[in-house]
Amino acid sequence: MAETVRHDKTARQLRLLSDALGSGRLGPVKRMVNTLSPAEIGNLLESLPPGKRSVVWGLVEAEDDGEVLLHVGDEVRESLIADMDPDELIAAASDLDIDDLADLVEDLPDTVIDEVLKSMDRENRERLEQVLSYDEDTAGRLMNPDVVTVRADTTVDVVLRYLRLRGELPDHTDHLYVVSKRHQFLGRIALQALLTHEPSTPINQLLDDEQPAIGVDETSDEVARQFSDHDWISAPVVDDNNILLGRITIDDVVDIIREQAEHQALSAAGLGEDEDLFSPVWRAMRRRLVWLSVNLCTAFIAANVVGQFEHTIDKLVALAILMPMVAGLGGNAGTQVMALVVRGLALGQIGGSNIRTLLWKELRVALLNGLLMGAVLGLIVLAWFHNAGLSLVIFTALTCNLLLAAASGVLIPIGLKRAGFDPALASGIFLTALTDSLGFFTFLGLATVVLLR
Amino acid sequence: MAETVRHDKTARQLRLLSDALGSGRLGPVKRMVNTLSPAEIGNLLESLPPGKRSVVWGLVEAEDDGEVLLHVGDEVRESLIADMDPDELIAAASDLDIDDLADLVEDLPDTVIDEVLKSMDRENRERLEQVLSYDEDTAGRLMNPDVVTVRADTTVDVVLRYLRLRGELPDHTDHLYVVSKRHQFLGRIALQALLTHEPSTPINQLLDDEQPAIGVDETSDEVARQFSDHDWISAPVVDDNNILLGRITIDDVVDIIREQAEHQALSAAGLGEDEDLFSPVWRAMRRRLVWLSVNLCTAFIAANVVGQFEHTIDKLVALAILMPMVAGLGGNAGTQVMALVVRGLALGQIGGSNIRTLLWKELRVALLNGLLMGAVLGLIVLAWFHNAGLSLVIFTALTCNLLLAAASGVLIPIGLKRAGFDPALASGIFLTALTDSLGFFTFLGLATVVLLR
Repeated sequence: MAETVRHDKTARQLRLLSDALGSGRLGPVKRMVNTLSPAEIGNLLESLPPGKRSVVWGLVEAEDDGEVLLHVGDEVRESLIADMDPDELIAAASDLDIDDLADLVEDLPDTVIDEVLKSMDRENRERLEQVLSYDEDTAGRLMNPDVVTVRADTTVDVVLRYLRLRGELPDHTDHLYVVSKRHQFLGRIALQALLTHEPSTPINQLLDDEQPAIGVDETSDEVARQFSDHDWISAPVVDDNNILLGRITIDDVVDIIREQAEHQALSAAGLGEDEDLFSPVWRAMRRRLVWLSVNLCTAFIAANVVGQFEHTIDKLVALAILMPMVAGLGGNAGTQVMALVVRGLALGQIGGSNIRTLLWKELRVALLNGLLMGAVLGLIVLAWFHNAGLSLVIFTALTCNLLLAAASGVLIPIGLKRAGFDPALASGIFLTALTDSLGFFTFLGLATVVLLR
Repeated sequence: MAETVRHDKTARQLRLLSDALGSGRLGPVKRMVNTLSPAEIGNLLESLPPGKRSVVWGLVEAEDDGEVLLHVGDEVRESLIADMDPDELIAAASDLDIDDLADLVEDLPDTVIDEVLKSMDRENRERLEQVLSYDEDTAGRLMNPDVVTVRADTTVDVVLRYLRLRGELPDHTDHLYVVSKRHQFLGRIALQALLTHEPSTPINQLLDDEQPAIGVDETSDEVARQFSDHDWISAPVVDDNNILLGRITIDDVVDIIREQAEHQALSAAGLGEDEDLFSPVWRAMRRRLVWLSVNLCTAFIAANVVGQFEHTIDKLVALAILMPMVAGLGGNAGTQVMALVVRGLALGQIGGSNIRTLLWKELRVALLNGLLMGAVLGLIVLAWFHNAGLSLVIFTALTCNLLLAAASGVLIPIGLKRAGFDPALASGIFLTALTDSLGFFTFLGLATVVLLR
C-alpha cells in the first residue's frame, strides 16, 4: 500500500501533464511544470518519451535549466543538452554553484565551456579548475569552495556584525568554520551557538573541534558513510596540510546514497544507473547485448555439461524433465545467500575474521534446506515416475547443489571484491553459471552411476 | 576500486577488534569501541557472530546503548535487548528523544515499558503516546514533537533574546517555526536570516511560507521523496487543521532512504532488510524455506511442461541439451527489463500514459536481440548437431521467448503494483516462472511440430 500512495503525486502530475500535452494547449503545461522543483522536473522529464520530453523541456523556465540538468541521468541529460542552443547552455551553466557546474561541465560542448569560462571572474574560474582537478567520485569533486570562515580570537558580537554585513550565507550553512592565518582548519561554530550565546562570548569557547575534516581525496562512498554514521548536515574538506578547501553538504550526500542504491539494483541485471527509460532502441539493444552474450556463454557451458550425458538422458527421459529443477532451486538458494553477502560487503561488515563463521552458518542452513526440499522433491518424483533410484538421485543431487550454492553465494562476492571487481555487478552471472553447470553435472552424473549400472 | 577503498575503515576496525578479542584483552577493545559513533558501533555489532557480539555489546558505554539499538536491524536488536537487564534497558530508553523512543518501544519487554513511562514527566509521556498513535511508516512516527516556535508579530532582537534565554536548540534546527495563537503553522524563519539581519527587523519580513508542511499521515516514502526533491534539512509536520505537531529532520530521512535501498536489494531474493547476517540456523532456514517452496512450485510447473513433451525429447535428446538455454536467456533478458521498470515505478516515472510507449520500445529491443542471439545460437546448433530444422526451431523459439520476456518484464511489475503488491518483491518469481514454462513450451512445441512431423 505504501508504494501505491507514495507516488500518487508524481503519477498524478504525469497523467495531468499527458492530458494537457495531448490537447495541445501548452499554457497549462507550462504553468504546471514551473510549480515543480528542479528535481521533480527532472523526474518528470525522465518519465517522458523523447518527443514529449523535448516539448516539456522547452517550457521549463530558463533559470531552472541548469538545476534540472543536474537532476537527470547522463543519458537523459545528453538528450536535453542536444535540444538547447549554445546561448541557453551558457546561461544555464552560469546560474550554477561551482561544485554543480563541475558536475555538468564534461557533458557540455567545448565551445560552450570556453564561453562559460570566459564569462566567469578569475576567482571563480580558478575555483572551478581546482574542483575539476580532483578525480570524479572524490570529496574534492563534491565540495563547494564557497565557505564562510571566521577567526578564533574574536567574539560572537563581532561575528554577528560580520554576518549582517555579509548578508546571505551559502545554502545549508549550519556551521561557520574557524581557520588559522594560514587558512588551516581549526574547528567549527554552530549557527545555533551564535544564536544562543551572549554577544560577549569569545568564539574560542564555542569552537567545536570534535568533528574530523574530510580529506579531499576520500571517495564519495566514504563521504556518504561518514555523513550517515554521524548525522552531519555539512562537513569541511581539507588537503593533506589541513588547509580548508571547501565544504560538502547533505543534499549532495543524499544524491550519492540514491545513486548507490540505483547502481546496486540495476547493476545486478547488467544495467547502468544512467540508463534512460526511453533510450533509442539501437542503443538499448547494444547495451543489453553485452550482458546477454555473457549469459549465452555460461548457458553454453551448462548445455555442454548436459551434452556429456546424452546417452544417460536417452535411456531415461525423466532426467530431462527434472534436471532444470535441481539447477533452478540451487540458483535461487544461492541468490539468497549472495544478496545477504553483497549487502554485508557494501556495509563493510564482512572481513577476514568472520567469513569462516558465515560460511559455516550458511552451509548448515543449506544442508537443512537441502535435506528437507530434497525429501519433498524425492517423494514427488517417486509418485510421478515410480522409480526409487531416481528419487534417491534427485534427493542427493539437490542437497549437494544447495550446499554448493551456499558456498558460492558466500565466496563469489567476497572473491570478486578482493580481486577489485564490483560484487553487485558480476556475482549473479558466476553464481548461476556454477549452480546450473554443477547442478546438471551432479544430477546427471549420479543418475549415470546409480541408475545405469 | 571505490568499493575497496570505501570500507577500509570498517574492515580495518573489524580486524583490529577481532585480534584484540582473540587475545582476550578487553581493555583495548573497549577503548576502540567507544571512539566510534553509535551508528558505527551498530554496524560493528551486526558484523560479529553472536558470541563476540555479546562480549562487545557489554563493553559499549551505557549512555550510547539507546542510540546503538536504533542503528541495528530488528533481529540484531532483539539479540542485544535479550543481553540487557531491565535497569540497563530503562536507562538506555530514558536517554532517547521521543521519536527515537517510539521506534524502540515496541521491541522492549512490557515491564520495561511501564518503568520507562513511569520515569517520564507527564508532558513527555503524552507526547510519546501521541507519536505512537500514528501508523508506522508515516510522518507522525518520524516526527519529533520538540520544536522551537516563535510568533510573527515580533522582531529579530526579541527572538535572539528568547533564544539566548532558552539555550541549546534541538539537533538539526535550521529553522524556527512561526505559529499563530492557536498553534497553526504559518511559515518558517531560517537561523541564517536571524544572523544576517539587523536586530530591529520584524519577523514578518523574514517569514518564508513557501515550503509546504508535511501532513501527519503522509507515508515515510513520500516524506523521503519530498526531502530529496527539495533539499530540505528539516520540515514541519501538521495535522488536518494545520496545527503544528512536530518536525522531521534529514538524519531520519537518510535512514529511510538507506532502508528503502536495502529493502529493494534484499526483497528481490525474498529476504527482509532486518535479517541478521548471523541469525540462528533454524530461523534462517525457516525463512528461506518459504521462498524456496514457492520456487519449487514454479519449477514444478515448468517440469510439467517439459513432461508433456517426453516423447519428443525421447526421439531427439539434443532438445534436452538445448532447452535450458532458451529458458535461461529469456529469464535474463526479462530480468533486465524488469529492473528498469521496478526502478521507474519506485520513482513514480511509469504511469498510464507511457506504459504503451515503454512496452513498444522494449518489444523492439527484444525483437532485435532475439533475431541476433537466435541467429548466433542457431549457427552454433547447426555446427554442433548438423540439423537445420533444429537450428531453425531454436532461432524461432529464442526470439519468441525474448519477446515474451520483454512483455512480462514490463507488465508483471506494473500489474503487481496495481494489485497492491510490492513489485520489487514478487516480480522475479513470476517472471522466471513464465520465461521457463513458456520457453520450454515454445521450444519443445515447435520442435514437435517441425521436427517430428
